[in-house]
Amino acid sequence: MNKTEKQIQNQLIPVVLKQVAIQDSFWSARERNVIETVVPYQWDALNDAIPGAEPSHTIENFRIAAGDSQGEYYGMVFQDSDLGKWLETVGFVLSKKRDPQLEKIADDVIDLLGRAQQSDGYLNTYYTVKEPGARWTNLRDNHELYCAGHLMEAAVAYYEATGKKKFLDIMCRYADYIATVFGSEEDKTRGYDGHPEIELALVKLYQATGNRAYLELSKYFVDERGQQPHYFDLEAQAREEVLSPNKKKRLYDYFQAHLPVREQKTAEGHSVRAVYLYSAMTDLAADYNDAELFDACKALWKDTVQSKMYVTGGIGSSAYEERFTVPFDLPNDRAYTETCAAIGLMFWAQRMLQVEKDREYADVMELALYNGVLSGISLDGRSYFYVNPLEVWPATANFRNDMSTVKVTRQPWFGCACCPPNIARLIASLGQYIYSTDPGNSELYVHLYIGSALELELGGQTVKLQQQTNYPWDGRAALEIALEQAAPFTIALRMPGWCSSAKISVNGQEITDSVQEKGYVKINRTWQDGDRIELAMEIPVQLVRSHPDVRENAGKVALQRGPVVYCLEEIDNGPNLQDIVLSSDAEFDVEFDAQLLGGVTVLTGEATRSDIKADDSRLYTTQAYSRVPAAIKAIPYFAWSNRTPGEMTVWIRSQ
Amino acid sequence: MNKTEKQIQNQLIPVVLKQVAIQDSFWSARERNVIETVVPYQWDALNDAIPGAEPSHTIENFRIAAGDSQGEYYGMVFQDSDLGKWLETVGFVLSKKRDPQLEKIADDVIDLLGRAQQSDGYLNTYYTVKEPGARWTNLRDNHELYCAGHLMEAAVAYYEATGKKKFLDIMCRYADYIATVFGSEEDKTRGYDGHPEIELALVKLYQATGNRAYLELSKYFVDERGQQPHYFDLEAQAREEVLSPNKKKRLYDYFQAHLPVREQKTAEGHSVRAVYLYSAMTDLAADYNDAELFDACKALWKDTVQSKMYVTGGIGSSAYEERFTVPFDLPNDRAYTETCAAIGLMFWAQRMLQVEKDREYADVMELALYNGVLSGISLDGRSYFYVNPLEVWPATANFRNDMSTVKVTRQPWFGCACCPPNIARLIASLGQYIYSTDPGNSELYVHLYIGSALELELGGQTVKLQQQTNYPWDGRAALEIALEQAAPFTIALRMPGWCSSAKISVNGQEITDSVQEKGYVKINRTWQDGDRIELAMEIPVQLVRSHPDVRENAGKVALQRGPVVYCLEEIDNGPNLQDIVLSSDAEFDVEFDAQLLGGVTVLTGEATRSDIKADDSRLYTTQAYSRVPAAIKAIPYFAWSNRTPGEMTVWIRSQ
Repeated sequence: MNKTEKQIQNQLIPVVLKQVAIQDSFWSARERNVIETVVPYQWDALNDAIPGAEPSHTIENFRIAAGDSQGEYYGMVFQDSDLGKWLETVGFVLSKKRDPQLEKIADDVIDLLGRAQQSDGYLNTYYTVKEPGARWTNLRDNHELYCAGHLMEAAVAYYEATGKKKFLDIMCRYADYIATVFGSEEDKTRGYDGHPEIELALVKLYQATGNRAYLELSKYFVDERGQQPHYFDLEAQAREEVLSPNKKKRLYDYFQAHLPVREQKTAEGHSVRAVYLYSAMTDLAADYNDAELFDACKALWKDTVQSKMYVTGGIGSSAYEERFTVPFDLPNDRAYTETCAAIGLMFWAQRMLQVEKDREYADVMELALYNGVLSGISLDGRSYFYVNPLEVWPATANFRNDMSTVKVTRQPWFGCACCPPNIARLIASLGQYIYSTDPGNSELYVHLYIGSALELELGGQTVKLQQQTNYPWDGRAALEIALEQAAPFTIALRMPGWCSSAKISVNGQEITDSVQEKGYVKINRTWQDGDRIELAMEIPVQLVRSHPDVRENAGKVALQRGPVVYCLEEIDNGPNLQDIVLSSDAEFDVEFDAQLLGGVTVLTGEATRSDIKADDSRLYTTQAYSRVPAAIKAIPYFAWSNRTPGEMTVWIRSQ
Repeated sequence: MNKTEKQIQNQLIPVVLKQVAIQDSFWSARERNVIETVVPYQWDALNDAIPGAEPSHTIENFRIAAGDSQGEYYGMVFQDSDLGKWLETVGFVLSKKRDPQLEKIADDVIDLLGRAQQSDGYLNTYYTVKEPGARWTNLRDNHELYCAGHLMEAAVAYYEATGKKKFLDIMCRYADYIATVFGSEEDKTRGYDGHPEIELALVKLYQATGNRAYLELSKYFVDERGQQPHYFDLEAQAREEVLSPNKKKRLYDYFQAHLPVREQKTAEGHSVRAVYLYSAMTDLAADYNDAELFDACKALWKDTVQSKMYVTGGIGSSAYEERFTVPFDLPNDRAYTETCAAIGLMFWAQRMLQVEKDREYADVMELALYNGVLSGISLDGRSYFYVNPLEVWPATANFRNDMSTVKVTRQPWFGCACCPPNIARLIASLGQYIYSTDPGNSELYVHLYIGSALELELGGQTVKLQQQTNYPWDGRAALEIALEQAAPFTIALRMPGWCSSAKISVNGQEITDSVQEKGYVKINRTWQDGDRIELAMEIPVQLVRSHPDVRENAGKVALQRGPVVYCLEEIDNGPNLQDIVLSSDAEFDVEFDAQLLGGVTVLTGEATRSDIKADDSRLYTTQAYSRVPAAIKAIPYFAWSNRTPGEMTVWIRSQ
């Protein structure tokens, strides 16, 4: 089979952030929260100005590296990346609306970055301050290129928002320097980072600058990964490192460096690293029209979503090494499901979607967004889950050592603060996940139903689109088109996987002859100014079951409505949620409660519970407990732990 | 309430080992296995003569301490106790039948012990060899008194079997010395061991020697525990120890030293330590007629068996710190349930039984014996489980760090080899758990149905009793009495908690007017030589359910027949055992298979499984899987993992 005959390239181009303004009943408040609360809060955190929170020292590290301040490096080896994620968020925020005050702070810190940069372009505070002279001696563990990648992503976002080039130039200098150090040429080191990130960042740097050297450097990093002789072995020998046998076990799987990437068929190791790598692989497969690489992406995708993904879109079921484990090993009460991993899954899903135009990718992207990602942040934006379990038993989780990573309430900040800035940048950049275009075929794709105003060039003229919806609580969306003159093009609307019945009308006229391709209904016509598309999707409460191989969910169902997965909390349902049993044809009342949890749609229904007599002290019995009716109330999973802490479960026993 | 008014004392006296000879279809082979295989094997282990096993160095440590050999101490700080447990087993073995060859080995090693003993009576190889001068500086962690206790127990067993006093004298000298060091008097140290054991051993030493000082020393250790100022604090200060905050968490709970023992109402901490302590507390409550102490024992018993015991009689659900956790936290796939803890629960249950004559204690003792204890040893006696999970998924358990203590197959020996010698001494001493007497009331109690020949003094003459049974596979037992002359006394037969219907006859005549007291049917008559009691208990397959607060067992049943808990293994039932569902009125065929697993009764029945199509790759679906009939086969839990390793589960889903 000649694989190169296959055409692998981006079919779609995401509509960029600047062209989309979110105006949405669900998301605008969250976006505002990021802009007004999270960005200032995280700036304070980076500056150690939050009483009671673990110190970050991030800005101080840069000051010391720049010679502006005296002191010692403090924090994780990847502390620089927190500033990268924050500046990237600032870039996204400014792309919506310039803000001179915020821009001043950002420009000042960019100046600081410039001063911290070494004369050869190198920019990393850990090695500059703490281990000068030891650069590039431990790529496996020390996140040097990872930090570079986050700063590159930030530079691109800041440049695209403001047009200011200083930050971009700093990072291009750094990238140029990196390209002199690493590569397959004789005079270069054949290294790559233990934590993938720079690979996808270099693709963005290439897209922003047009400099193909960055794309090629990314391709080098991806293709070198896992080759023999193994770079991590060589570098460990050079360090004279002695590893414990336990540490050696599955060592390279952890880094997705156990095999050359094209030979990797199963999702292994640290789940955030995995999806960052797979994102870059997907970018490169498209940019290089590399069918073999895309085949690897598809195999990895299949393995992930068919055997290693929670119903919330969370991934990575082991706290130890924050990693994937074995197929169908998805414990709910010890789920790790790091917020960053769900975010990374969105990154990857979006990239797969541009190549394949298949709603499956958008379904996963949306599932992760409304569940595994959004659960990571409190409603007020001030506290965060790093770990997102699907079942919590406070007394047990607070006691057992094997559940020590499970927290019952969100925390204000973390010493390892990867998740809070990651979720902030995701929400601030949500606009770029909603639409794509296929310019060659004059197609506009609508992936997500989020109220928004879009302005783009299509068919040689400016097209404006206004999307209105109460999604995810309501399955209806209206799209109004504004055009200078009538024009033929296609609007492709995603029919989510959860939706079995929908009606579409244009200007009140139901469309019955539309074509559906891989989950997108394509409406091809000559559009007039003022045309209005109305989509009405049925959005029933669904009882979701797992594949029988997921033993933790055997005999249980999850409640889902639209993209939103529900859970039971103790505050609504009393203790011992595992005793609740739904009938297999359970029905639910659906009601929007504007007063609850910032406004959520609540499900109420009937179930049963054991009839436990007060004096029943038998731990084991041959008598079956009789069952009594019990009213239950389910709330969206993302909103759990915003009231009195207590038990929570997503999976509910079912007859 | 004047607690001292209550009469708390041993109502019963166990019939000692020498008076009982096990002649049983189930146990004799196991006893023989211990005598012929385990005792020699463990002797080799203590002498580092087993190729491939972790070295023990136990004997060599004693040689070095005695000056017979040069070298350094090696092994756990409590390595001496392995010799204690082995010698105790030898004592039990010799009490059945003297064996000059084995006795020679034992006498030689006892001589070695004598040479290793210091001039003041002290006897501990770790402190003699490795830290001379540092005796009694870390009672909390270093098991000094614990090792002494195990050697004392051994000395008593060896003396009772052989009449030889040398070992007993060595240990009395050591005990006498210990009594000069520890006590509540001004000139003594108010210490006690982090690992209870010496307390129950001193009671045995008192019983063997009649020296009440040993009982009083035991009482001192028990009563001092958890008092303020806290001895472990004082001792840690003297060591200038700095503890990490994590280590400090629940520090004294772990040692059952968080409160004075009379104030302890819940079972906490390391489960083996707990039941060893509770055993001594029960002994002392009886010996001192101490109602307050016995009330604490009863509260602890209730807490243990009503909220912290597995259906197998296993206890201690957390691998971390091998401890009890919170009520109803009984995960099956991460059960720790150390073999030693189930053995310790038997010790405690037997002691409670002598005080209260209530079958509840015998039920727990028997449950632990046939399940949580016996699962610790392979059928050939050559490999052992330290950890006894109730559910095993090899791929997951072998991968996940939070299941790292769960082994899929028994191991030949352990660096921390507490369980193998413990199970050996339990099996070798099983004879003493079967019968008790109440001499004041001329009563003979039959607690366990195990084929055996008993000879004892009752009502002024020698009574012989021959018990015949195929228990636990059969609920029938026959007891034949041999007497010199007719005599009136009572035989009390335990009606196990699992038995709802039984018939008793004497010489073929059914007894219908017998009195049942706390689960014992009392047959009071003037017995004639040759009288024969026949007991026929119905022994149906029972579907056991947990209290609904045990969330891991919600919707599941365990199969039990008589005292034997069953499990499903993959080799009989295919993979994914969690997919199997029993109907709530499931019935089983019961058949003894002499060829299987050394001869076991097997249960076969009908259940259902999901109908999974080969091409079904959906991880989540709104479609319910259809169910198809599936034959299932259950084997006794204790016999699992003696064939091809694979999945195993005790708890089975039920409609």
